[in-house]
Amino acid sequence: MRDKQYLMIPGPTPVPAKVMEGIMAPPIGHRTPEFGQIIKEVTENIKEIYQTKNDLFILTSSGTGAMEAAVANFVNSGEKAIIMDNGNFGERWVKICDRYGVDAEVISGPWGEQADPKALANRLNQDKNGEIKAVFVTHNETSTGVLNDVKALREAMGDHPALFIVDSVSGMAAAPLKVDEWKLDVVVSGSQKAYMIPPGLAFVSVSDKAWSASDKVKNPRFYFDLRAAKKSYDEKYNTPYTPATNLVLGLQCSLKMMKEEGLENIYKRHNYFKNIVRTAVRALGLELLATDKAASASVTAIKKPENIDVKDITKIMRTKHNIVMAGGQGKLKNDIFRIGHLGYVHVNDIIVTIACLEMTLKELGMNVELGQGVRAMQEFILKGDK
Amino acid sequence: MRDKQYLMIPGPTPVPAKVMEGIMAPPIGHRTPEFGQIIKEVTENIKEIYQTKNDLFILTSSGTGAMEAAVANFVNSGEKAIIMDNGNFGERWVKICDRYGVDAEVISGPWGEQADPKALANRLNQDKNGEIKAVFVTHNETSTGVLNDVKALREAMGDHPALFIVDSVSGMAAAPLKVDEWKLDVVVSGSQKAYMIPPGLAFVSVSDKAWSASDKVKNPRFYFDLRAAKKSYDEKYNTPYTPATNLVLGLQCSLKMMKEEGLENIYKRHNYFKNIVRTAVRALGLELLATDKAASASVTAIKKPENIDVKDITKIMRTKHNIVMAGGQGKLKNDIFRIGHLGYVHVNDIIVTIACLEMTLKELGMNVELGQGVRAMQEFILKGDK
Repeated sequence: MRDKQYLMIPGPTPVPAKVMEGIMAPPIGHRTPEFGQIIKEVTENIKEIYQTKNDLFILTSSGTGAMEAAVANFVNSGEKAIIMDNGNFGERWVKICDRYGVDAEVISGPWGEQADPKALANRLNQDKNGEIKAVFVTHNETSTGVLNDVKALREAMGDHPALFIVDSVSGMAAAPLKVDEWKLDVVVSGSQKAYMIPPGLAFVSVSDKAWSASDKVKNPRFYFDLRAAKKSYDEKYNTPYTPATNLVLGLQCSLKMMKEEGLENIYKRHNYFKNIVRTAVRALGLELLATDKAASASVTAIKKPENIDVKDITKIMRTKHNIVMAGGQGKLKNDIFRIGHLGYVHVNDIIVTIACLEMTLKELGMNVELGQGVRAMQEFILKGDK
Repeated sequence: MRDKQYLMIPGPTPVPAKVMEGIMAPPIGHRTPEFGQIIKEVTENIKEIYQTKNDLFILTSSGTGAMEAAVANFVNSGEKAIIMDNGNFGERWVKICDRYGVDAEVISGPWGEQADPKALANRLNQDKNGEIKAVFVTHNETSTGVLNDVKALREAMGDHPALFIVDSVSGMAAAPLKVDEWKLDVVVSGSQKAYMIPPGLAFVSVSDKAWSASDKVKNPRFYFDLRAAKKSYDEKYNTPYTPATNLVLGLQCSLKMMKEEGLENIYKRHNYFKNIVRTAVRALGLELLATDKAASASVTAIKKPENIDVKDITKIMRTKHNIVMAGGQGKLKNDIFRIGHLGYVHVNDIIVTIACLEMTLKELGMNVELGQGVRAMQEFILKGDK
């Protein structure tokens, strides 16, 4: 019953039937004015979610491709940058910068805690000559279930001239991110997350300040050259190379659904999922990796019980209970497991996940009282808390 | 989130994605040899489920249409028949027979109990001249969650020459029914039940004995004239009038899935659902309508708690929890509610249903311990009982 599988991972998200209808539409000519209109509509709707008037482009790639675009187009090889790294996706910024020869300084923070705005402020204060050209941060650190405080990090920069570049692949639309108000220069997000469509598209916004920096950047780039994207958009609202047309058609549907739900309600919904999962996990006597203040609205990281392997938990959940959860990543690979609650999720999906997690932990020898996590969730739901 | 709704009614069943793919195929010419081959394949696969070598036809109608065909083609107006009636669908036989002027004698049994084979045997023993031409029974009485003992009922007939006509609309493939071994002359079933496709098709098998009776029947009939069906099948494996082609294409897919799962496993699965639901219902202190021996594998009927309206239960389940359950039917309309577990159901669907039922009953003022029904199910599942 593959189609009854619960996708409780931090993306890919379950996809609404309405969106699948869009994806299953007959192929459309990608150079037609009709498709140009769709690109225009979709782009404008994404800008509303970004809360920006900046340029915004649709890329046919995973979020990582858009992250590469954010490095390749805006920071020259040899230039200095800072990376706020407190998880696996912070490390992805490190790897990409390394590949492009960026002279990146990593400000590491403990995995499971928020990146420290003070550490960033201190470092930038020492940079009197403005040698640092960019600061890379992660909005939602998928690997640890931590939501970094992007607003505070940006404020920590003060008037420093560096670009502020944000990976919000798993954060965008699940938790607030105000691109213009907070002055975020380049912001990346991905389709298979809160946008509720399958993987294959990524989005990137570019501020005027970022465009100015871009002019001086000489890194070799072609597919991810955002100047080409801008040219195509400006000429006829299109993409420079063939886009994944049917994903765009699906995105058109999902953006309509998101507009109908309203951005604030989407934030609230994800926040509710976070609270409900944390309530159940605590009732089961399990330990959460992140504090309430630092916790992600997209994914919850749970420390594994003693004497139980993470792999066994996710394997039994998947094979016996038809529920796909995530283990840890990077250095926490075997220490935590993660429940995603991102995108097209219903509270019933979470009820099933907790009920089956209880059975799985019991089967693996943990002294868990069956029904206890479910009961805590039921009480939470009936109280009507948000 | 209509597409996340749980359809926990005794049909229509949830439909697998694979089946929807079949239904969404481009329309096919219904008079082509290709479609004839599909009708042939589908019919043969249904015969395996019926466990019969009798003729079997696909009708484009609901199950009720096939029930009408079973009356119209095989019992003359004015002829005597017996109807074993212990529920709303027993009463449907009564209504159809009445419309066709059949002189039907109703052997009524209490709703919630099995039809009584001894009562049938006693009545037929008095019919020394063979005036009774047909006995109508219901395999699975959807309205009360009772599975009648069709084998015992047929055995109670002994050598009496009457036709034995069975409504197995919600029973076929969920619980064993051996058409040839048990000598069942006319057997009706419907697409939206254990066959896992949407409503719109019905199936009827006809024994040689039933064909002989049919020759003498003069009721007016056209769309449901099974002689026309037989002629089309015999000539070119087709239907006399345009069939619901895309439902047939979906049925082709679902029958392949059913073959893969195996008939015995499908029976076991439904029996497991029955046991798990009954375990949870008992743990919640609710009362079941049918005894274990009489209980249906397709649907479970539960007596409503005191001081709570059935309508409120089903309304809250549907509007707040996205779960569709059934109230009562006929004279039990306001006394019971029913959880269907028929067709494309996963045990997780039942877990969600029970968890949400607990919240609903609590909200309606019942003194229910949250999580108690879920825990009973979890224990049952972990024990590995079937």
